[in-house]
Amino acid sequence: MRKVAILGIGQTPVGEHWNKSMLELAGEAIFGALQDSGVETVDAIFVGNMLSGILEKQEHLGTLIADWVGMRGTEAVKIESACSSGAVAFRNGLIAVASGEIDKALVVGVEKMTDSLPGTTTAALATAADADWEIIHGLSFVGLNALIMQRYMFEYGWKHEDFASFSINAHANGVHNPNARFRAPISKEQYLKAHIIASPISILDSSPIGDGAAAALLVPADRVFSIEGKPKIIIAGSASATDSLAVHDRKDPLWLSAAEISAKKAYNQAGVTPDNIDFFELHDAFSIMAALSLEACGFAERGQGPRLALDDEITIQGRIPVATRGGLKARGHPIGATGMYQIVEVVQQLRGECGETQIAGAKIGMAQNIGGSGATIATHILRVE
Amino acid sequence: MRKVAILGIGQTPVGEHWNKSMLELAGEAIFGALQDSGVETVDAIFVGNMLSGILEKQEHLGTLIADWVGMRGTEAVKIESACSSGAVAFRNGLIAVASGEIDKALVVGVEKMTDSLPGTTTAALATAADADWEIIHGLSFVGLNALIMQRYMFEYGWKHEDFASFSINAHANGVHNPNARFRAPISKEQYLKAHIIASPISILDSSPIGDGAAAALLVPADRVFSIEGKPKIIIAGSASATDSLAVHDRKDPLWLSAAEISAKKAYNQAGVTPDNIDFFELHDAFSIMAALSLEACGFAERGQGPRLALDDEITIQGRIPVATRGGLKARGHPIGATGMYQIVEVVQQLRGECGETQIAGAKIGMAQNIGGSGATIATHILRVE
Repeated sequence: MRKVAILGIGQTPVGEHWNKSMLELAGEAIFGALQDSGVETVDAIFVGNMLSGILEKQEHLGTLIADWVGMRGTEAVKIESACSSGAVAFRNGLIAVASGEIDKALVVGVEKMTDSLPGTTTAALATAADADWEIIHGLSFVGLNALIMQRYMFEYGWKHEDFASFSINAHANGVHNPNARFRAPISKEQYLKAHIIASPISILDSSPIGDGAAAALLVPADRVFSIEGKPKIIIAGSASATDSLAVHDRKDPLWLSAAEISAKKAYNQAGVTPDNIDFFELHDAFSIMAALSLEACGFAERGQGPRLALDDEITIQGRIPVATRGGLKARGHPIGATGMYQIVEVVQQLRGECGETQIAGAKIGMAQNIGGSGATIATHILRVE
Repeated sequence: MRKVAILGIGQTPVGEHWNKSMLELAGEAIFGALQDSGVETVDAIFVGNMLSGILEKQEHLGTLIADWVGMRGTEAVKIESACSSGAVAFRNGLIAVASGEIDKALVVGVEKMTDSLPGTTTAALATAADADWEIIHGLSFVGLNALIMQRYMFEYGWKHEDFASFSINAHANGVHNPNARFRAPISKEQYLKAHIIASPISILDSSPIGDGAAAALLVPADRVFSIEGKPKIIIAGSASATDSLAVHDRKDPLWLSAAEISAKKAYNQAGVTPDNIDFFELHDAFSIMAALSLEACGFAERGQGPRLALDDEITIQGRIPVATRGGLKARGHPIGATGMYQIVEVVQQLRGECGETQIAGAKIGMAQNIGGSGATIATHILRVE
């Protein structure tokens, strides 16, 4: 297989884009990535999206986006893997370039969520869980995560307030990201007083949905040279793994085995250990997921994820900075686009473009995107070469 | 890239499977393909499906199917490209094996359509067209195809009855396919008397929807040897191309440019011309589409597709047999599964397993799967090696 590099990136702010269509958002991210790359056409377009069929009555989105951006004729495909649609689309684009079949692959994650009627979005998101065994009982995603968090606190003796640092860190970093949905810091007092949605999960444990798109252009690494001071960034590790959709079916509902499998594969490919990872864009859809991700990927012992946050090890100056651009919690979680936001943000860190939240000397960054409550997990390790 | 072979195939009958769930159908096809291949596990699962989110309230289908068939942990992804979801999933599985990243890729196309409320399915299918420019005006897929057929008849002087042979041939072949939805032959008289749905398209110009699943297992070609008299079947050509979703946006609404692009690429890869193709599993969702496909792929002159059918050149004994197992018209069109049925049927012909509709000495077969009214077209050429 050929080694693959990221030539350019693009993104829109995450928000309530009532004046922009799904296609306009995708186009904005794509043209950003093309301009950043200095290329005008590509050989294939991979679109990560979960909800356009249900919320926008529009499937067939790969081909529609190819036409929208003026690339009619170009091969295009939509990949759906719930909240991990972005990273899974990225991985399929990566494989296509690695294979030699495609030279320039454009990957875009896009989601348009805020135009829908109240309630519609929650029901649409529930299609990521097991319809027959979870949704039929009325569970929503916050409900599923609340059950997991409740059990986690019981098993390991943590209190709700012990998770505060995940959200506080994410919001502190989001302040400096012009594309973040929330750019206001939060205090521990605010966290403790926040409305409970599904006990123990409060509004400040939860990431907001949003409209947005993020894109990256992939090319064979041997065609990229450092331009205008931008370092060459290669994909050193890529893997995706699965688990049961239904949480109750898992051997251990408190262990993200798909995160462990995909992270170990990615570490092996990159020839690194968790100690070598300079920062980690994890999938903090809910604060409990941040804790579980850190454990499954080897940054914390089982049951000790919150300890890292309490000890300030996840901040920009800490041992393993997470959510450096705000994470899902503050940048926002436009479902099918989220995995691509993570990739774009890792590139920004490796390029040294993150200003106040720049990690000094960052050379190796990891992104991990989770679909459902841990059922599909794709891990990517990017490195400056 | 590594050359890739098809090790095994599986399929369910196409029909109204009121006693089987979508997962059961997918499992049946998958276990068929595994048993045919003599393997028990795979490295990745590619699922082609269009409608499960809208009709079954279940997205995240790749991972769910992986778990259902006992392969929890295994990488899995769902690919959606409207009616071409099956072939596009196949192509992505093929690229993954060709790249070296995946050794055994299982591709399954599955669709469950007949459990839905009346009207729901037509509306769901409409999401394959352009929501903003076509569907908003009340167009459905039969409507779109009727407009194309009406214009085609006007431009080239054909009458409705000139298309009869496409449907008669498909039904004649479907009689001998135990997995076909319709196994009754039709006469020219029946064709001429059939109810009009959207003029000039009658019920006998239209393929039926259905529930079904079809699967194939892909492996590197150098690992396959002829077993039990089964020939080694390789993928000699694979390409996918796009056009505008909205028919009115095309330079020429009577020309399937994505079929032309993808077929030419596949011919080049395989080192063949249309003259070398022994049979062609084309996408006869409506009889007009069969005519347009034959023209765009170089089997007939522009505007002369119906001539091939009238001259009996598309029958099993003809110059370019099509719909040899019934095609979409008689085997049925379970949307996201259709492209995989075509692949499975090409393999059956190349293996010599088609009984009464066997094409003597068939060595090279082509399958072409169309998404929307020509917006995404994937072409595959399979060959006995």
